[in-house]
Amino acid sequence: MASGGVKVLGTPYSPYVNRVQIALNLKSVDFEFIEENLSSKSDLLLKCNPVNRKVPVLIHDENCICESLTIIQYIDETWTTNGYSILPSDPYDRAVARFWSAYFDDKLVPLMRELKSVQKEEKVAAIERIKEAMVLLEEAYEKCSKGKSYFGADNIGYIDIVLGSYMGWIKAMEIVGGMKVMEEAKTPGLLGWIHKFMSNNAVKSVIPETEIFVKLLRARAIAPPKYS
Amino acid sequence: MASGGVKVLGTPYSPYVNRVQIALNLKSVDFEFIEENLSSKSDLLLKCNPVNRKVPVLIHDENCICESLTIIQYIDETWTTNGYSILPSDPYDRAVARFWSAYFDDKLVPLMRELKSVQKEEKVAAIERIKEAMVLLEEAYEKCSKGKSYFGADNIGYIDIVLGSYMGWIKAMEIVGGMKVMEEAKTPGLLGWIHKFMSNNAVKSVIPETEIFVKLLRARAIAPPKYS
Repeated sequence: MASGGVKVLGTPYSPYVNRVQIALNLKSVDFEFIEENLSSKSDLLLKCNPVNRKVPVLIHDENCICESLTIIQYIDETWTTNGYSILPSDPYDRAVARFWSAYFDDKLVPLMRELKSVQKEEKVAAIERIKEAMVLLEEAYEKCSKGKSYFGADNIGYIDIVLGSYMGWIKAMEIVGGMKVMEEAKTPGLLGWIHKFMSNNAVKSVIPETEIFVKLLRARAIAPPKYS
Repeated sequence: MASGGVKVLGTPYSPYVNRVQIALNLKSVDFEFIEENLSSKSDLLLKCNPVNRKVPVLIHDENCICESLTIIQYIDETWTTNGYSILPSDPYDRAVARFWSAYFDDKLVPLMRELKSVQKEEKVAAIERIKEAMVLLEEAYEKCSKGKSYFGADNIGYIDIVLGSYMGWIKAMEIVGGMKVMEEAKTPGLLGWIHKFMSNNAVKSVIPETEIFVKLLRARAIAPPKYS
Protein backbone atom coordinates (compact mmCIF):
# COMPACT_ATOMS: atom_id res chain seq x y z
CA MET A 1 0.00 0.00 0.00
CA ALA A 2 1.33 3.44 -0.89
CA SER A 3 2.46 5.69 1.93
CA GLY A 4 -0.29 8.23 1.20
CA GLY A 5 1.26 10.65 3.64
CA VAL A 6 1.25 8.29 6.62
CA LYS A 7 3.84 9.44 9.15
CA VAL A 8 4.71 8.33 12.65
CA LEU A 9 6.44 10.70 15.04
CA GLY A 10 8.29 8.80 17.71
CA THR A 11 11.41 7.27 19.14
CA PRO A 12 12.31 3.64 18.43
CA TYR A 13 12.69 2.90 22.17
CA SER A 14 9.16 3.84 23.20
CA PRO A 15 6.79 0.89 23.59
CA TYR A 16 3.92 3.27 22.86
CA VAL A 17 5.51 4.20 19.55
CA ASN A 18 6.27 0.54 18.84
CA ARG A 19 2.56 -0.21 19.21
CA VAL A 20 1.78 2.11 16.33
CA GLN A 21 4.55 0.68 14.14
CA ILE A 22 3.35 -2.88 14.79
CA ALA A 23 -0.29 -2.01 14.07
CA LEU A 24 0.66 -0.37 10.76
CA ASN A 25 2.83 -3.37 9.84
CA LEU A 26 -0.03 -5.76 10.55
CA LYS A 27 -2.23 -3.71 8.24
CA SER A 28 0.51 -3.59 5.57
CA VAL A 29 0.50 0.21 5.61
CA ASP A 30 3.74 1.87 4.51
CA PHE A 31 4.73 4.83 6.63
CA GLU A 32 7.49 7.30 7.19
CA PHE A 33 9.07 7.15 10.64
CA ILE A 34 10.16 10.56 11.88
CA GLU A 35 12.44 10.23 14.88
CA GLU A 36 11.89 12.78 17.60
CA ASN A 37 14.48 14.08 20.01
CA LEU A 38 12.43 14.17 23.20
CA SER A 39 14.80 16.58 24.91
CA SER A 40 14.19 19.07 22.09
CA LYS A 41 10.78 18.36 20.65
CA SER A 42 10.13 19.36 17.06
CA ASP A 43 7.71 22.09 16.03
CA LEU A 44 5.82 19.37 14.14
CA LEU A 45 5.30 17.34 17.32
CA LEU A 46 4.21 20.39 19.32
CA LYS A 47 1.83 21.39 16.55
CA CYS A 48 0.42 17.87 16.22
CA ASN A 49 0.04 17.14 19.92
CA PRO A 50 -0.18 20.53 21.67
CA VAL A 51 -2.09 19.06 24.62
CA ASN A 52 0.15 16.22 25.76
CA ARG A 53 3.31 17.01 23.73
CA LYS A 54 4.14 13.33 23.55
CA VAL A 55 4.95 10.65 21.05
CA PRO A 56 3.56 8.69 19.34
CA VAL A 57 1.67 10.81 16.86
CA LEU A 58 0.21 9.35 13.68
CA ILE A 59 -0.23 11.79 10.81
CA HIS A 60 -2.69 10.70 8.16
CA ASP A 61 -4.62 12.78 5.64
CA GLU A 62 -3.38 15.98 7.32
CA ASN A 63 -4.88 14.82 10.63
CA CYS A 64 -2.85 14.17 13.76
CA ILE A 65 -3.93 11.28 15.95
CA CYS A 66 -2.42 11.01 19.44
CA GLU A 67 -2.25 8.48 22.29
CA SER A 68 -1.22 4.95 21.41
CA LEU A 69 -4.47 3.12 22.25
CA THR A 70 -6.48 5.66 20.29
CA ILE A 71 -4.06 5.39 17.38
CA ILE A 72 -4.26 1.58 17.28
CA GLN A 73 -8.05 1.75 17.12
CA TYR A 74 -7.85 4.46 14.43
CA ILE A 75 -5.56 2.24 12.37
CA ASP A 76 -7.88 -0.73 12.83
CA GLU A 77 -10.92 1.30 11.73
CA THR A 78 -9.19 3.10 8.85
CA TRP A 79 -7.31 0.40 6.99
CA THR A 80 -9.72 -2.45 6.54
CA THR A 81 -8.86 -3.67 3.06
CA ASN A 82 -6.24 -6.30 3.87
CA GLY A 83 -8.77 -8.22 5.97
CA TYR A 84 -6.69 -7.99 9.13
CA SER A 85 -8.59 -7.04 12.28
CA ILE A 86 -6.69 -5.95 15.36
CA LEU A 87 -9.73 -5.85 17.62
CA PRO A 88 -12.06 -8.86 17.55
CA SER A 89 -15.43 -8.44 15.83
CA ASP A 90 -17.61 -9.58 18.75
CA PRO A 91 -18.51 -6.69 21.12
CA TYR A 92 -17.84 -8.76 24.25
CA ASP A 93 -14.46 -9.94 22.97
CA ARG A 94 -13.66 -6.30 22.12
CA ALA A 95 -14.60 -5.30 25.66
CA VAL A 96 -12.31 -8.00 27.07
CA ALA A 97 -9.46 -6.74 24.87
CA ARG A 98 -10.02 -3.14 26.01
CA PHE A 99 -10.28 -4.21 29.65
CA TRP A 100 -6.94 -6.02 29.79
CA SER A 101 -5.20 -3.34 27.78
CA ALA A 102 -6.44 -0.66 30.17
CA TYR A 103 -5.44 -2.88 33.10
CA PHE A 104 -1.92 -3.15 31.76
CA ASP A 105 -1.51 0.58 31.10
CA ASP A 106 -3.32 1.87 34.18
CA LYS A 107 -2.35 -0.69 36.80
CA LEU A 108 0.69 -2.74 35.80
CA VAL A 109 2.82 -0.05 34.16
CA PRO A 110 2.52 2.28 37.19
CA LEU A 111 3.55 -0.66 39.42
CA MET A 112 6.64 -1.21 37.30
CA ARG A 113 7.48 2.48 37.36
CA GLU A 114 7.19 2.47 41.16
CA LEU A 115 10.16 0.11 41.32
CA LYS A 116 12.42 3.02 40.48
CA SER A 117 11.47 5.10 43.47
CA VAL A 118 10.56 2.70 46.28
CA GLN A 119 12.97 1.73 49.05
CA LYS A 120 14.48 -1.74 49.39
CA GLU A 121 11.85 -3.31 51.64
CA GLU A 122 9.02 -1.78 49.62
CA LYS A 123 10.64 -3.11 46.44
CA VAL A 124 10.05 -6.71 47.49
CA ALA A 125 6.35 -5.96 47.99
CA ALA A 126 6.17 -4.07 44.68
CA ILE A 127 7.75 -6.99 42.79
CA GLU A 128 5.26 -9.32 44.46
CA ARG A 129 2.36 -7.17 43.22
CA ILE A 130 3.79 -7.19 39.69
CA LYS A 131 4.06 -10.99 39.83
CA GLU A 132 0.43 -11.23 40.96
CA ALA A 133 -0.60 -9.01 38.05
CA MET A 134 1.35 -11.25 35.66
CA VAL A 135 -0.58 -14.27 36.95
CA LEU A 136 -3.81 -12.44 36.14
CA LEU A 137 -2.49 -11.79 32.64
CA GLU A 138 -1.55 -15.47 32.35
CA GLU A 139 -5.19 -16.36 33.10
CA ALA A 140 -6.35 -13.79 30.55
CA TYR A 141 -3.98 -15.29 28.00
CA GLU A 142 -5.36 -18.78 28.59
CA LYS A 143 -8.91 -17.55 28.03
CA CYS A 144 -8.28 -15.22 25.09
CA SER A 145 -5.84 -17.36 23.12
CA LYS A 146 -8.13 -20.41 23.09
CA GLY A 147 -5.13 -22.71 22.77
CA LYS A 148 -3.68 -20.74 19.87
CA SER A 149 -0.56 -18.54 19.79
CA TYR A 150 -1.73 -15.06 20.70
CA PHE A 151 -4.20 -13.18 22.88
CA GLY A 152 -5.86 -12.58 19.51
CA ALA A 153 -5.88 -16.41 18.99
CA ASP A 154 -4.46 -17.11 15.51
CA ASN A 155 -3.24 -13.57 14.95
CA ILE A 156 -1.69 -10.73 16.88
CA GLY A 157 -4.52 -8.62 18.26
CA TYR A 158 -5.08 -5.58 20.46
CA ILE A 159 -3.88 -7.05 23.78
CA ASP A 160 -0.85 -8.59 22.06
CA ILE A 161 0.21 -5.19 20.74
CA VAL A 162 -0.43 -3.34 24.01
CA LEU A 163 1.36 -5.83 26.27
CA GLY A 164 3.88 -7.11 23.78
CA SER A 165 5.30 -3.70 23.04
CA TYR A 166 6.52 -3.56 26.64
CA MET A 167 8.17 -6.97 26.81
CA GLY A 168 11.61 -5.75 25.76
CA TRP A 169 11.59 -3.26 28.63
CA ILE A 170 10.31 -5.86 31.07
CA LYS A 171 13.03 -8.35 30.11
CA ALA A 172 15.62 -5.58 30.51
CA MET A 173 14.13 -4.57 33.86
CA GLU A 174 14.50 -8.18 35.03
CA ILE A 175 18.14 -8.28 33.94
CA VAL A 176 19.09 -4.91 35.43
CA GLY A 177 17.09 -5.49 38.62
CA GLY A 178 18.33 -9.06 39.09
CA MET A 179 14.81 -10.42 39.52
CA LYS A 180 12.02 -12.22 37.70
CA VAL A 181 8.49 -10.94 37.36
CA MET A 182 7.48 -13.84 35.11
CA GLU A 183 8.34 -17.40 36.07
CA GLU A 184 7.97 -20.65 34.16
CA ALA A 185 5.98 -22.21 37.01
CA LYS A 186 3.38 -19.46 37.19
CA THR A 187 3.27 -17.86 33.74
CA PRO A 188 4.26 -20.56 31.24
CA GLY A 189 1.73 -19.33 28.68
CA LEU A 190 2.97 -15.75 28.79
CA LEU A 191 6.60 -16.81 28.45
CA GLY A 192 5.80 -18.87 25.37
CA TRP A 193 3.68 -16.04 24.01
CA ILE A 194 6.52 -13.50 24.34
CA HIS A 195 8.72 -15.66 22.15
CA LYS A 196 6.02 -16.04 19.48
CA PHE A 197 5.16 -12.34 19.59
CA MET A 198 8.76 -11.18 19.33
CA SER A 199 9.41 -13.55 16.41
CA ASN A 200 6.45 -12.30 14.36
CA ASN A 201 7.40 -10.50 11.17
CA ALA A 202 5.33 -7.43 12.06
CA VAL A 203 7.17 -7.13 15.37
CA LYS A 204 10.76 -8.27 15.06
CA SER A 205 11.91 -5.32 12.99
CA VAL A 206 10.24 -2.88 15.39
CA ILE A 207 11.14 -3.70 18.99
CA PRO A 208 14.81 -3.07 19.73
CA GLU A 209 17.04 -5.83 21.12
CA THR A 210 16.68 -6.30 24.87
CA GLU A 211 20.39 -5.50 25.21
CA ILE A 212 19.70 -1.94 24.05
CA PHE A 213 17.08 -1.47 26.77
CA VAL A 214 19.51 -2.94 29.30
CA LYS A 215 22.09 -0.34 28.30
CA LEU A 216 19.52 2.45 28.45
CA LEU A 217 18.31 1.36 31.87
CA ARG A 218 21.88 1.03 33.21
CA ALA A 219 23.04 4.31 31.72
CA ARG A 220 20.12 6.42 32.75
CA ALA A 221 18.73 4.43 35.66
CA ILE A 222 15.34 5.03 34.16
CA ALA A 223 12.14 3.16 34.69
CA PRO A 224 10.16 1.91 31.71
CA PRO A 225 8.57 4.81 29.81
CA LYS A 226 5.48 6.60 30.96
CA TYR A 227 2.01 6.02 29.62
CA SER A 228 1.21 7.81 26.37
CA MET B 1 -36.76 -3.06 24.39
CA ALA B 2 -37.10 -5.89 26.88
CA SER B 3 -34.64 -6.08 29.74
CA GLY B 4 -33.16 -9.35 28.40
CA GLY B 5 -31.13 -9.72 31.56
CA VAL B 6 -29.38 -6.35 31.35
CA LYS B 7 -28.19 -5.34 34.80
CA VAL B 8 -26.04 -2.50 36.06
CA LEU B 9 -24.18 -2.83 39.35
CA GLY B 10 -23.42 0.58 40.79
CA THR B 11 -24.20 3.44 43.08
CA PRO B 12 -26.30 6.39 41.88
CA TYR B 13 -23.61 8.88 43.00
CA SER B 14 -20.78 7.53 40.85
CA PRO B 15 -20.22 9.45 37.60
CA TYR B 16 -18.74 6.27 36.12
CA VAL B 17 -21.95 4.41 36.87
CA ASN B 18 -24.01 7.35 35.56
CA ARG B 19 -22.14 7.02 32.24
CA VAL B 20 -23.46 3.50 31.83
CA GLN B 21 -27.02 4.48 32.78
CA ILE B 22 -26.98 7.39 30.29
CA ALA B 23 -25.57 5.23 27.48
CA LEU B 24 -28.27 2.60 28.03
CA ASN B 25 -30.97 5.31 28.12
CA LEU B 26 -29.73 6.77 24.83
CA LYS B 27 -29.98 3.31 23.28
CA SER B 28 -33.45 2.77 24.79
CA VAL B 29 -32.26 -0.35 26.60
CA ASP B 30 -34.22 -1.27 29.71
CA PHE B 31 -32.06 -2.43 32.57
CA GLU B 32 -32.19 -3.39 36.20
CA PHE B 33 -30.12 -1.17 38.49
CA ILE B 34 -28.61 -3.09 41.39
CA GLU B 35 -27.33 -0.72 44.02
CA GLU B 36 -24.05 -1.71 45.60
CA ASN B 37 -22.90 -0.88 49.11
CA LEU B 38 -19.26 -0.07 48.43
CA SER B 39 -18.24 -0.56 52.04
CA SER B 40 -19.55 -4.12 51.85
CA LYS B 41 -19.32 -5.23 48.24
CA SER B 42 -21.68 -7.95 47.11
CA ASP B 43 -20.58 -11.42 46.07
CA LEU B 44 -22.06 -10.63 42.67
CA LEU B 45 -19.77 -7.59 42.23
CA LEU B 46 -16.69 -9.51 43.37
CA LYS B 47 -17.56 -12.37 41.04
CA CYS B 48 -18.19 -10.02 38.10
CA ASN B 49 -15.17 -7.78 38.59
CA PRO B 50 -12.60 -9.82 40.53
CA VAL B 51 -9.68 -7.80 39.16
CA ASN B 52 -10.66 -4.22 40.02
CA ARG B 53 -13.60 -4.91 42.40
CA LYS B 54 -15.26 -1.68 41.29
CA VAL B 55 -18.51 -0.41 39.92
CA PRO B 56 -19.85 0.00 37.32
CA VAL B 57 -20.37 -3.49 36.00
CA LEU B 58 -22.74 -4.22 33.14
CA ILE B 59 -24.18 -7.73 33.05
CA HIS B 60 -25.52 -8.81 29.68
CA ASP B 61 -26.07 -12.31 28.30
CA GLU B 62 -24.32 -13.77 31.36
CA ASN B 63 -21.21 -11.71 30.57
CA CYS B 64 -19.77 -9.09 32.92
CA ILE B 65 -18.33 -5.97 31.33
CA CYS B 66 -16.23 -3.66 33.51
CA GLU B 67 -14.70 -0.15 33.31
CA SER B 68 -16.99 2.66 32.23
CA LEU B 69 -15.29 3.59 28.92
CA THR B 70 -15.20 -0.04 27.87
CA ILE B 71 -18.83 -0.47 28.86
CA ILE B 72 -19.97 2.58 26.86
CA GLN B 73 -18.25 1.23 23.77
CA TYR B 74 -19.74 -2.22 24.38
CA ILE B 75 -23.21 -0.67 24.60
CA ASP B 76 -22.60 1.31 21.41
CA GLU B 77 -21.46 -1.78 19.52
CA THR B 78 -24.13 -4.13 20.92
CA TRP B 79 -27.38 -2.19 20.65
CA THR B 80 -27.44 -0.76 17.16
CA THR B 81 -31.10 -1.14 16.25
CA ASN B 82 -32.47 2.21 17.39
CA GLY B 83 -30.09 4.03 15.05
CA TYR B 84 -28.42 5.96 17.84
CA SER B 85 -24.62 6.08 17.68
CA ILE B 86 -22.63 7.20 20.71
CA LEU B 87 -19.30 7.27 18.94
CA PRO B 88 -19.15 9.04 15.56
CA SER B 89 -18.84 6.88 12.45
CA ASP B 90 -15.73 8.53 11.00
CA PRO B 91 -12.48 7.00 12.35
CA TYR B 92 -10.83 10.39 12.87
CA ASP B 93 -13.84 11.77 14.73
CA ARG B 94 -13.83 8.59 16.84
CA ALA B 95 -10.16 9.15 17.62
CA VAL B 96 -10.91 12.75 18.67
CA ALA B 97 -13.69 11.51 20.95
CA ARG B 98 -11.42 8.91 22.52
CA PHE B 99 -8.60 11.43 22.91
CA TRP B 100 -10.61 14.00 24.88
CA SER B 101 -12.30 11.34 26.97
CA ALA B 102 -8.92 9.88 27.94
CA TYR B 103 -7.64 13.41 28.60
CA PHE B 104 -10.52 14.05 30.98
CA ASP B 105 -10.15 10.78 32.88
CA ASP B 106 -6.36 10.61 32.94
CA LYS B 107 -5.41 14.27 33.35
CA LEU B 108 -8.30 16.40 34.59
CA VAL B 109 -9.88 14.02 37.12
CA PRO B 110 -6.52 13.43 38.90
CA LEU B 111 -6.06 17.24 39.04
CA MET B 112 -9.45 17.60 40.68
CA ARG B 113 -8.71 14.83 43.15
CA GLU B 114 -5.45 16.53 44.07
CA LEU B 115 -7.44 19.47 45.47
CA LYS B 116 -8.36 17.32 48.44
CA SER B 117 -4.80 16.72 49.58
CA VAL B 118 -2.76 19.78 48.56
CA GLN B 119 -1.91 22.62 50.92
CA LYS B 120 -3.37 26.12 50.63
CA GLU B 121 -0.73 27.69 48.40
CA GLU B 122 -0.60 24.60 46.17
CA LYS B 123 -4.38 24.69 45.92
CA VAL B 124 -4.31 28.00 44.03
CA ALA B 125 -1.91 26.52 41.49
CA ALA B 126 -3.98 23.33 41.21
CA ILE B 127 -7.16 25.33 40.56
CA GLU B 128 -5.30 27.30 37.91
CA ARG B 129 -4.29 24.07 36.16
CA ILE B 130 -7.89 22.86 36.23
CA LYS B 131 -9.04 26.14 34.70
CA GLU B 132 -6.46 25.81 31.93
CA ALA B 133 -7.71 22.28 31.24
CA MET B 134 -11.27 23.60 31.07
CA VAL B 135 -10.20 26.12 28.43
CA LEU B 136 -8.78 23.25 26.37
CA LEU B 137 -12.11 21.46 26.71
CA GLU B 138 -13.88 24.66 25.65
CA GLU B 139 -11.80 24.66 22.44
CA ALA B 140 -12.59 20.99 21.92
CA TYR B 141 -16.28 21.74 22.40
CA GLU B 142 -16.19 24.48 19.79
CA LYS B 143 -14.58 22.13 17.26
CA CYS B 144 -16.61 19.02 17.99
CA SER B 145 -20.05 20.59 18.39
CA LYS B 146 -19.91 22.41 15.04
CA GLY B 147 -22.28 25.08 16.34
CA LYS B 148 -24.79 22.49 17.60
CA SER B 149 -25.66 21.58 21.18
CA TYR B 150 -23.31 18.77 22.14
CA PHE B 151 -19.77 17.50 21.65
CA GLY B 152 -21.59 14.92 19.53
CA ALA B 153 -23.16 17.85 17.56
CA ASP B 154 -26.92 17.20 17.33
CA ASN B 155 -26.91 14.37 19.84
CA ILE B 156 -25.19 13.39 23.05
CA GLY B 157 -22.06 11.43 22.13
CA TYR B 158 -19.08 9.79 23.78
CA ILE B 159 -17.34 12.93 25.08
CA ASP B 160 -20.66 14.30 26.34
CA ILE B 161 -21.25 11.18 28.42
CA VAL B 162 -17.69 10.99 29.76
CA LEU B 163 -17.42 14.66 30.76
CA GLY B 164 -21.06 15.32 31.47
CA SER B 165 -21.33 12.54 34.04
CA TYR B 166 -18.89 14.51 36.20
CA MET B 167 -20.57 17.90 36.01
CA GLY B 168 -22.72 17.44 39.11
CA TRP B 169 -19.59 16.70 41.14
CA ILE B 170 -17.73 19.65 39.62
CA LYS B 171 -20.58 22.05 40.39
CA ALA B 172 -20.66 20.75 43.97
CA MET B 173 -16.88 21.04 44.23
CA GLU B 174 -17.16 24.70 43.20
CA ILE B 175 -19.83 25.35 45.82
CA VAL B 176 -18.04 23.55 48.66
CA GLY B 177 -14.63 24.94 47.71
CA GLY B 178 -15.90 28.50 47.19
CA MET B 179 -14.26 28.75 43.77
CA LYS B 180 -14.98 28.55 40.07
CA VAL B 181 -13.19 26.26 37.63
CA MET B 182 -15.45 27.30 34.75
CA GLU B 183 -16.12 30.97 34.07
CA GLU B 184 -18.49 32.65 31.65
CA ALA B 185 -15.66 34.70 30.13
CA LYS B 186 -13.44 31.71 29.34
CA THR B 187 -15.75 28.73 28.94
CA PRO B 188 -19.11 30.09 27.72
CA GLY B 189 -19.65 27.12 25.42
CA LEU B 190 -19.07 24.55 28.18
CA LEU B 191 -21.41 26.36 30.57
CA GLY B 192 -24.18 26.39 27.98
CA TRP B 193 -23.45 22.76 27.16
CA ILE B 194 -23.76 21.66 30.80
CA HIS B 195 -27.27 23.07 30.94
CA LYS B 196 -28.31 21.32 27.71
CA PHE B 197 -26.70 18.05 28.78
CA MET B 198 -28.28 18.04 32.22
CA SER B 199 -31.71 18.81 30.76
CA ASN B 200 -31.61 15.93 28.27
CA ASN B 201 -34.18 13.21 28.92
CA ALA B 202 -31.53 10.47 28.94
CA VAL B 203 -29.58 12.33 31.62
CA LYS B 204 -31.88 14.20 33.94
CA SER B 205 -33.27 11.12 35.66
CA VAL B 206 -29.76 9.74 36.16
CA ILE B 207 -27.46 12.38 37.62
CA PRO B 208 -28.43 13.30 41.18
CA GLU B 209 -29.16 16.91 42.14
CA THR B 210 -26.04 18.97 42.79
CA GLU B 211 -27.30 19.59 46.33
CA ILE B 212 -26.86 15.87 47.07
CA PHE B 213 -23.21 15.97 45.97
CA VAL B 214 -22.72 19.12 48.07
CA LYS B 215 -24.02 17.28 51.12
CA LEU B 216 -21.82 14.26 50.36
CA LEU B 217 -18.74 16.43 49.90
CA ARG B 218 -19.43 18.39 53.09
CA ALA B 219 -20.26 15.32 55.16
CA ARG B 220 -17.37 13.17 54.08
CA ALA B 221 -14.88 15.78 52.88
CA ILE B 222 -14.35 13.55 49.90
CA ALA B 223 -12.93 14.38 46.52
CA PRO B 224 -14.85 13.42 43.39
CA PRO B 225 -14.80 9.65 42.86
CA LYS B 226 -11.84 7.79 41.52
CA TYR B 227 -11.46 6.60 37.98
CA SER B 228 -13.25 3.35 37.13
